[in-house]
Amino acid sequence: MPKPVLELYSFGEQHLEKHPIQHCEELKPFLERKDLKFWLNISSIQDRNLILEIASLLSIHPLVVEDITNTSQRPKIEEFDDHIFILVKMLFSKNKFSEIQTAQVSILFGPNYILSFQETAQDIFDNIRIRLENPKGKMRKLGPDYFTYTLVDAIIDEYFDILEMISDTVEKYDDQILQNKPNVNLNTLHQQRKMLRKIRSNIWPTRELISVWKKSEHPLTKRKNLTYINDIYEHTIEILEGLELQRETMSNLAELYMTQLSIKQNEVMKTLTIIATIFIPLTFIAGIYGMNFQVMPELEWKYSYPVLWVIFILISVFMIRYFKQKKWF
Amino acid sequence: MPKPVLELYSFGEQHLEKHPIQHCEELKPFLERKDLKFWLNISSIQDRNLILEIASLLSIHPLVVEDITNTSQRPKIEEFDDHIFILVKMLFSKNKFSEIQTAQVSILFGPNYILSFQETAQDIFDNIRIRLENPKGKMRKLGPDYFTYTLVDAIIDEYFDILEMISDTVEKYDDQILQNKPNVNLNTLHQQRKMLRKIRSNIWPTRELISVWKKSEHPLTKRKNLTYINDIYEHTIEILEGLELQRETMSNLAELYMTQLSIKQNEVMKTLTIIATIFIPLTFIAGIYGMNFQVMPELEWKYSYPVLWVIFILISVFMIRYFKQKKWF
Amino acid sequence: MPKPVLELYSFGEQHLEKHPIQHCEELKPFLERKDLKFWLNISSIQDRNLILEIASLLSIHPLVVEDITNTSQRPKIEEFDDHIFILVKMLFSKNKFSEIQTAQVSILFGPNYILSFQETAQDIFDNIRIRLENPKGKMRKLGPDYFTYTLVDAIIDEYFDILEMISDTVEKYDDQILQNKPNVNLNTLHQQRKMLRKIRSNIWPTRELISVWKKSEHPLTKRKNLTYINDIYEHTIEILEGLELQRETMSNLAELYMTQLSIKQNEVMKTLTIIATIFIPLTFIAGIYGMNFQVMPELEWKYSYPVLWVIFILISVFMIRYFKQKKWF
Amino acid sequence: MPKPVLELYSFGEQHLEKHPIQHCEELKPFLERKDLKFWLNISSIQDRNLILEIASLLSIHPLVVEDITNTSQRPKIEEFDDHIFILVKMLFSKNKFSEIQTAQVSILFGPNYILSFQETAQDIFDNIRIRLENPKGKMRKLGPDYFTYTLVDAIIDEYFDILEMISDTVEKYDDQILQNKPNVNLNTLHQQRKMLRKIRSNIWPTRELISVWKKSEHPLTKRKNLTYINDIYEHTIEILEGLELQRETMSNLAELYMTQLSIKQNEVMKTLTIIATIFIPLTFIAGIYGMNFQVMPELEWKYSYPVLWVIFILISVFMIRYFKQKKWF
Amino acid sequence: MPKPVLELYSFGEQHLEKHPIQHCEELKPFLERKDLKFWLNISSIQDRNLILEIASLLSIHPLVVEDITNTSQRPKIEEFDDHIFILVKMLFSKNKFSEIQTAQVSILFGPNYILSFQETAQDIFDNIRIRLENPKGKMRKLGPDYFTYTLVDAIIDEYFDILEMISDTVEKYDDQILQNKPNVNLNTLHQQRKMLRKIRSNIWPTRELISVWKKSEHPLTKRKNLTYINDIYEHTIEILEGLELQRETMSNLAELYMTQLSIKQNEVMKTLTIIATIFIPLTFIAGIYGMNFQVMPELEWKYSYPVLWVIFILISVFMIRYFKQKKWF
Repeated sequence: MPKPVLELYSFGEQHLEKHPIQHCEELKPFLERKDLKFWLNISSIQDRNLILEIASLLSIHPLVVEDITNTSQRPKIEEFDDHIFILVKMLFSKNKFSEIQTAQVSILFGPNYILSFQETAQDIFDNIRIRLENPKGKMRKLGPDYFTYTLVDAIIDEYFDILEMISDTVEKYDDQILQNKPNVNLNTLHQQRKMLRKIRSNIWPTRELISVWKKSEHPLTKRKNLTYINDIYEHTIEILEGLELQRETMSNLAELYMTQLSIKQNEVMKTLTIIATIFIPLTFIAGIYGMNFQVMPELEWKYSYPVLWVIFILISVFMIRYFKQKKWF
Repeated sequence: MPKPVLELYSFGEQHLEKHPIQHCEELKPFLERKDLKFWLNISSIQDRNLILEIASLLSIHPLVVEDITNTSQRPKIEEFDDHIFILVKMLFSKNKFSEIQTAQVSILFGPNYILSFQETAQDIFDNIRIRLENPKGKMRKLGPDYFTYTLVDAIIDEYFDILEMISDTVEKYDDQILQNKPNVNLNTLHQQRKMLRKIRSNIWPTRELISVWKKSEHPLTKRKNLTYINDIYEHTIEILEGLELQRETMSNLAELYMTQLSIKQNEVMKTLTIIATIFIPLTFIAGIYGMNFQVMPELEWKYSYPVLWVIFILISVFMIRYFKQKKWF
Repeated sequence: MPKPVLELYSFGEQHLEKHPIQHCEELKPFLERKDLKFWLNISSIQDRNLILEIASLLSIHPLVVEDITNTSQRPKIEEFDDHIFILVKMLFSKNKFSEIQTAQVSILFGPNYILSFQETAQDIFDNIRIRLENPKGKMRKLGPDYFTYTLVDAIIDEYFDILEMISDTVEKYDDQILQNKPNVNLNTLHQQRKMLRKIRSNIWPTRELISVWKKSEHPLTKRKNLTYINDIYEHTIEILEGLELQRETMSNLAELYMTQLSIKQNEVMKTLTIIATIFIPLTFIAGIYGMNFQVMPELEWKYSYPVLWVIFILISVFMIRYFKQKKWF
Repeated sequence: MPKPVLELYSFGEQHLEKHPIQHCEELKPFLERKDLKFWLNISSIQDRNLILEIASLLSIHPLVVEDITNTSQRPKIEEFDDHIFILVKMLFSKNKFSEIQTAQVSILFGPNYILSFQETAQDIFDNIRIRLENPKGKMRKLGPDYFTYTLVDAIIDEYFDILEMISDTVEKYDDQILQNKPNVNLNTLHQQRKMLRKIRSNIWPTRELISVWKKSEHPLTKRKNLTYINDIYEHTIEILEGLELQRETMSNLAELYMTQLSIKQNEVMKTLTIIATIFIPLTFIAGIYGMNFQVMPELEWKYSYPVLWVIFILISVFMIRYFKQKKWF
Repeated sequence: MPKPVLELYSFGEQHLEKHPIQHCEELKPFLERKDLKFWLNISSIQDRNLILEIASLLSIHPLVVEDITNTSQRPKIEEFDDHIFILVKMLFSKNKFSEIQTAQVSILFGPNYILSFQETAQDIFDNIRIRLENPKGKMRKLGPDYFTYTLVDAIIDEYFDILEMISDTVEKYDDQILQNKPNVNLNTLHQQRKMLRKIRSNIWPTRELISVWKKSEHPLTKRKNLTYINDIYEHTIEILEGLELQRETMSNLAELYMTQLSIKQNEVMKTLTIIATIFIPLTFIAGIYGMNFQVMPELEWKYSYPVLWVIFILISVFMIRYFKQKKWF
């Protein structure tokens, strides 16, 4: 178990400092300072004791500690008198659809602090660190609710990349099936649909929690920042609608593939039927004159053989016409 | 990047003037005049600086600027203290279903101004310019909310044309499939369904935003103009119901096509089965008497050959009767 | 364009008179009399000028005039300060399902008048004219809201006839498919489903509008008449549930038909397979002894031929047993 | 038309009497007695005059009379100032699923009376008559709303029996299909689904009406009896969930049946293909050496025949291996 | 019928005692002590008299007694003035999916007591007994609503195990189908889906009841314990979403299996068609030269036989090319 890294920033409109801390007791002085805010980012949730200590410092509800350390949680929001707890799922991947992974991010903000607990050290908050350094930026001015918004926004922006990636894959399948290419891998399509369901099951509750946040009239969420929360709310809806579009497209692709299969099978059947229907009767006729009966007048007739060829050709022509009329080819 | 064209109209009940402007500073004097309203139409959203300048003139929220310049937005409404922001999607095409394109139109109206930002210069507001010239028309009298209604109405009227076009295409497929014509292109049908989904995903949030606008009690939306907003609300519902009807029809067409395929395959199978079932046993019999055994009493019997023909005919008749009884033909 | 017929009834509890009028100016005196109510039925909506004149007399909103004259409207209700506007669709047919037609009926009622505008002269209000003649009837007593109820009720009663007709057709198909009759016309079934969707799309918004009417607390809709409005509300729900039942039945019928096709195809396949599987090996054996090799000891053996017959029969019996065991017949 | 039987009970906490009455005038004295309640059960709704007389005695709304006598009504509740009207559907059958019948029961209760109108004389209220005789029972104490509850409860209890019956039938089909028995009657399954839809369409509005009753704050429904109404509300939900479960199971059964058919067809196809693929080439080879060319060197070679047999066997073995490798058998 | 075991704990912050009781009269003294709370767990619900006695002691509503003893109840909550009644279903199994069983647990809590009635003696409350022994635990401090929460939580935790088990089974099927293994048992899959539906039908109303509990403002449910109730509410949602995911996956698996069958059938058909189409014409040609006509010039020509072989090979090659071009293999 790697030791969790504690990253502490204290900041105000005119101030930004990064503090090297090892133990959570070092947090205490910051909690008491009302003129500054601080952001504590913890890179791992495996050190339960650490989280318990922080929880007791900030009087966090035991169920919240439970949620932070248990990574199988659904995204959710929990409002308390002096802080708001938000748990979301980060989705990330390395350029190939099949490797999408989820990591839990718990955010807790109070009047002058923001805590973020990450399941994985590989975070996506670099952009936020940069924005924090800008002394004129809103990060320093607009309070912990805005700060939390930027964190959640960064996570949701990743969802758009995932959605993009899924769209591309579906598009590729679409092309392959429309062009009737034989190397479409049905199993992969099936696995993609499974993936899609999994992703949706992570994003759906996120939409819900942001909706709750939006409507909550908790004093920690300032009215003037509601526009921002509404913004990420609309992003989640956009993502869900995009996923739904992909899901429908995939379902229609599967259907189309089935129909193509039926059309192909029909064609195979027609080929067999045409050949068999033409030649089986001819073969029968040939079989007749291969019989060895002593009394078979036709055998002795001089023109039998050419006449038979005429008959063969007539039957074939008739058959082919019949199939043409039925539009079999 | 073509330079965006700024089209400015100032108007009142007794007044209409078109002003040639190049820079947005020229807007200032109009903003201060309370006796006139003005409409500024900007033909392109690629000049971000221009939009930022206008935004700072009218103190527009940064997220709104974001929305105006980012063309992948969902249709939405955003209400602020002194203006209302509406973002919709224009659908247009050149008489062929497969070329439907979307373009974003952002409208922002305040107490005495209407701004419209267009993604594409090819607009659909000519009719509005004409109506604006009519000194007795409602455009000049009823305020910016009514003006915005006419803009949105013009956009939604285009949707009806698109819907008409889709109906015609579906109708054509319907005819082809019902008449069992073989040249139905399944892939095109599939692409049409994809298109339908895309269109719906644009119109659905439009309905939502108009619903929000209708219910909002913002002072900028006058109660007496609610009838008009309700009118476009009902138009969007009508369009959505129309799209849903087309979608269901397409889905049933695909199903019908599958059934027709099955019926055809069944017919092909029957033809093969009838021919094979009749001739395979006969060929076997002929094969028997083609054997070269030295001792085969039938071969020497004088009437063998005609008797065999009788047997052949009896077997065939029996088979045909059996199939007729089974209603195979 | 036929000239629209204006049918004007003035009535009170003790009074009923039919007035022959040609121009809408003749309406004015009636509008001013508070002791009487009047019903004006207009048999055509093609004379736009006439409707505009009436609209200006009663100060009707221009969008309502739009709705009255545009026959592609969705059913809807629109409430104004001094009148309520209701637009519904009449469905009628001449005893055959495929000829169902829609006609728009617009009703507008105020404190002492009811106007009805009909798309087609062929109306269904004869029953109402008769009820109006009854001096003790509620038509004369209960006010314009009750009167409007009777008009809408008459239109909705027609829906039940249409539903009946659809039920009968579906029932007929049901019988044909259940009895496996081959002359089921899939295309007709498909067209019926299309029809069903169209009808539902007309009735669905009617339900909605009556629901709005029911809940509206407009002074023109008296509380004591709510029972009546609730009555037609329940009728529309009943019709929609009936249509839904038919739709589900049709969908199940299509599914059942597909399954029957599969069963038949399976049977055809089995017949072919049984025949081919029995005779193909036998034919091969016969073919062997038809070969002309100089050295084939069996050919000279005296009992070859009868022994071969025994082999033929044994193979056949074995095959038939095998298929019986597999329950193929 | 059988004469309707009027069954009148007057009861109080200390009192129970059954009165033989013929005409509804005899009801009057009971209506005026405030110390007693009475229950009037009418065994038929065909005598419209009788119902009209009762209606005028109790000043019942004409639409209610309409509802009572028209047996094609949807279940519903209608609240009036001095009485509540409840219309439900009784389902009954004689131990076989296909004979489920519906009968309408209308219940109307006021401050001191309960009226019940039955479509069919064959009622299910015997249990209620017995409970009424119990002087300590709640029937006599808890008022007409409780009494109505017991009537509706008796009707809903019958639904559970129907549900049981349906479950049994579905279970039976399930077994037959799972065990791949060939005598599954698809048509019967189809008819059962139709039946299920019909039943649901009767129970669904019943749930709705009880929900309305539960939430109504009509003075005739005492608060302390709400627990009972809630009880039957939960029963209807339980039944609807049970029906839904059966519907889903049936739908899955139909799907499973289709899949089984496909599997069987696949097997049939494989059998045919294996036999044909092995013997068709062999027959061709035999055919070659059955040709009568004068120059065919193989014919004269001594070992041709045994060598050919070796070839036949080798081809067969190779084919069988190929199919085994493809897992065809 | 085994005698039900009555397990009585009286507890306070400083106190915990287990009392051996046989009859419910022994409960009386505890009911009167306001300084202590008690928990009575009854291991069986078959002794109706016992439950009736307890009910009369605590003045429990007769319908609640009905619910406790009738094991076919839906999960529900019922609030009374001085107690709250909660009925849930316990799901348990012994490591194999097909053996999931349900058992009803009824919980009733008042100001100072918690009663739990279990359908089966094999309970899952051992963990609770242990937690109760902890003098500093919340069980003793936080009141009967918290105590009930822990009981329900224990039951819901079991659901997660069941969900896990289902996931594993579905995963296994998924693997088998994706790897195209032939031993997938469709019937088992079907039974699993049935099981899934049954489980969902038990959990769905549980979610509902907890939602009602959460929103109820009953004085027995303290505001500060709402966080806990919300916690189990979210657990039920998580389970339902998990079940839905499994259901969708199963449905897609069945679909995929159908498509695989079609693909296989297509392959079988192609094999048959290729072989038959190549050899049937060849056999016909061989049949021609097996005829015994006296006049057949080719028979006498010296090079006939080798030329024919060339023809055979040419036809075969042409056919194979044709099929290759059609991408049949």
